[in-house]
Amino acid sequence: MEESLRFYTEILQMEIVEKLQKTEPTRGQVVTLKSKDSHQLLELNYYEDDTQFGTEYKNGEELDHLAFDVEDLLGTVEQLRKQGVEIIVEPNSIGSAIGWKEAFVRDPNGIWIELLERKPEPRKEMR
Amino acid sequence: MEESLRFYTEILQMEIVEKLQKTEPTRGQVVTLKSKDSHQLLELNYYEDDTQFGTEYKNGEELDHLAFDVEDLLGTVEQLRKQGVEIIVEPNSIGSAIGWKEAFVRDPNGIWIELLERKPEPRKEMR
Repeated sequence: MEESLRFYTEILQMEIVEKLQKTEPTRGQVVTLKSKDSHQLLELNYYEDDTQFGTEYKNGEELDHLAFDVEDLLGTVEQLRKQGVEIIVEPNSIGSAIGWKEAFVRDPNGIWIELLERKPEPRKEMR
Repeated sequence: MEESLRFYTEILQMEIVEKLQKTEPTRGQVVTLKSKDSHQLLELNYYEDDTQFGTEYKNGEELDHLAFDVEDLLGTVEQLRKQGVEIIVEPNSIGSAIGWKEAFVRDPNGIWIELLERKPEPRKEMR
């Protein structure tokens, strides 16, 4: 939890909305985060090993990645690289044929994080 | 993809923002969805088996579930049950000690979907 919190708040600069300890029904830690100017919530959960929710941690294929809008893809990636974040997919290596400026990095738990620069027009739903 | 689209658009009533076929770099299908009055996007991806992204499908523990706000938890769950959706955690069985009205259902791929009724006050970030 500490390592994940550091990643999402210090590196990705999300804000803590709510922090709960030993909450029912799981007795786990729950930290709710959001990005500035966003209503979207990301909930971090930690379960102790000896509880019914403390199952073996494994990465799956079903909920595959989280995506964040960024204003400056190249600058963001260089900043993250300096902070020790693993860059999985470098900018300009995928998506550029269809006008996407994007990269992927990895969070401390191995979760893929997509960084997406959408300019000048955001995608259809924002028009 | 067809079964998932039916679940998210007909049953959960999300709207299609964008629908792409055989897109680079994955050559996969990408359908972007949103709920009414929300800017949050949910992207469905289908990859053909013989591509580098068409790996074995398995459910993991890392990105655990998706949560949706609902106005009427009990009514929503009864409606979903009638439509054949599996209810994993019934209303009032967890969370009620701390004032949460919630339930969990399963999507066609086994992904847990949390339904959360937050009244009268939404959580801190919405105030």
